[in-house]
Amino acid sequence: MHVLATELLYEGKAKKVYATEQADVVRVVYKDDATAFNGQKKGQIVGKGSINNQMSNLLFSYLESNGVATHFIEELSERETLVRKVEIVPIEVIVRNIAAGSFTKRLGVAEGTDLTEPLVEFCYKNDELGDPLITDDHAIVLHLATREELAALRRQALEIDRLLQAKFAECDLILVDFKLEFGRLADGTIVLADEISPDTCRLWDVHTRKKLDKDRFRQDLGDVEDAYQEVFARIRKGQSQ
Amino acid sequence: MHVLATELLYEGKAKKVYATEQADVVRVVYKDDATAFNGQKKGQIVGKGSINNQMSNLLFSYLESNGVATHFIEELSERETLVRKVEIVPIEVIVRNIAAGSFTKRLGVAEGTDLTEPLVEFCYKNDELGDPLITDDHAIVLHLATREELAALRRQALEIDRLLQAKFAECDLILVDFKLEFGRLADGTIVLADEISPDTCRLWDVHTRKKLDKDRFRQDLGDVEDAYQEVFARIRKGQSQ
Ligand SMILES: Nc1ncnc2c1ncn2[C@@H]1O[C@H](COP(=O)(O)OP(=O)(O)O)[C@@H](O)[C@H]1O
Ligand SMILES: Nc1ncnc2c1ncn2[C@@H]1O[C@H](COP(=O)(O)OP(=O)(O)O)[C@@H](O)[C@H]1O
Ligand SMILES: [Mg+2]
Ligand SMILES: [Mg+2]
Repeated sequence: MHVLATELLYEGKAKKVYATEQADVVRVVYKDDATAFNGQKKGQIVGKGSINNQMSNLLFSYLESNGVATHFIEELSERETLVRKVEIVPIEVIVRNIAAGSFTKRLGVAEGTDLTEPLVEFCYKNDELGDPLITDDHAIVLHLATREELAALRRQALEIDRLLQAKFAECDLILVDFKLEFGRLADGTIVLADEISPDTCRLWDVHTRKKLDKDRFRQDLGDVEDAYQEVFARIRKGQSQ
Repeated sequence: MHVLATELLYEGKAKKVYATEQADVVRVVYKDDATAFNGQKKGQIVGKGSINNQMSNLLFSYLESNGVATHFIEELSERETLVRKVEIVPIEVIVRNIAAGSFTKRLGVAEGTDLTEPLVEFCYKNDELGDPLITDDHAIVLHLATREELAALRRQALEIDRLLQAKFAECDLILVDFKLEFGRLADGTIVLADEISPDTCRLWDVHTRKKLDKDRFRQDLGDVEDAYQEVFARIRKGQSQ
């Protein structure tokens, strides 16, 4: 596909989004910048952009081949990908299999507690408000999505959880929790967008329970780059089998 | 009913609960103590205990006569009431008709915004955690209630909202939002418990939109006692008609 690097549409904390010659296609460029705690903590994770880009594409392809509609079109380079342009639904869809992160702090549940059944949370994607947890009724009042869309988000999130858990299990990784973003195509169809990476998933080694994700950065656990590389190596290897 | 003041079972922020000679009946004694912001702000509102007790009883009787099961048995004195002993469901059930309080701060919605449809929120009743907002899935994982109970809480809360809105409208009061607590009787039946008062409701004068509730204490608006008396006088007058 012929792509002219044109206008920068949006620069986020982890990626830049550029327009292309096609109105319904954008080019995403992944950065090494890392932030945590709603931007209060800032740093760099060398090689992260390249890993997150390629890992996302690999997982989006896997999901597509299992019937999940995604924004993925084509990987252009280590850090750059063409995706279908969407209007992002301003809801962070979180799926939790094991208690960790804000869930443990807000509800007083010990990290590592098995949740028996996967649990879906919606947060209002709004940096100023700190991405607050919302109920379905809040999403409706705030006009973030329709009831039907919320049901679809929940259903798709659980299906993606099922597929990703299986994929990560092959790599001896436990999928503790993850955050998804969905978007609307021009015709209103909802597709999975954004990224799936160690920035957006909590991944623990199945044997040692070692954290192999952005929590190493958040909690100053060290070996951050190694963890990202380890996850990517395992996923890639799983892929080539 | 013959009641011997016996053991103090629990002292909360606003009330004391005593055992009685009957195992399934407790005596509630209302205090003038006022707290806000999860106990950070403390004070006294003279006459509050007496008003909240009598107003609660009046409203519980009204709800009972309209088919809502409550814990109310008998008013013993200005500040004391016999109620059915329940195991409190540790969920604060909040109903909102107009945006105010934490809703406006968490979601960036202007105070006074009409919510079109009443909105029910569940918060985990846990002072240590600051009564965090929860979803139905959280309530299940935390074993706070069953799915059936959550549905019953939501249904009853909306019915109570309908009845209370009508009652307060007769008194030229707008019911902005309120908090309910429910409890389980020995056989598991869920009944409305705790209190309904200017401590637990936001009430605005329909003409001036003047706040006539605990927000006068929270926000240091003055005339706190007058507001409680004004609300009680209007409700009482409505009653005697
Ligand atoms: N297919 C897409 N079309 C348009 N925008 C997208 C798409 N996928 C992701 N985005 C958006 O790109 C922006 C940049 O990503 P990121 O740097 O992760 O931002 P943020 O700082 O909001 O996390 C985000 O707002 C994200 O929602
Ligand atoms: N019918 C009842 N049986 C047993 N406990 C009750 C009943 N109604 C209310 N309670 C409880 O009585 C306690 C005292 O009330 P309050 O002083 O308002 O406490 P809090 O500090 O928790 O707000 C609360 O825990 C409340 O849930
Ligand atoms: Mg992002
Ligand atoms: Mg109370």
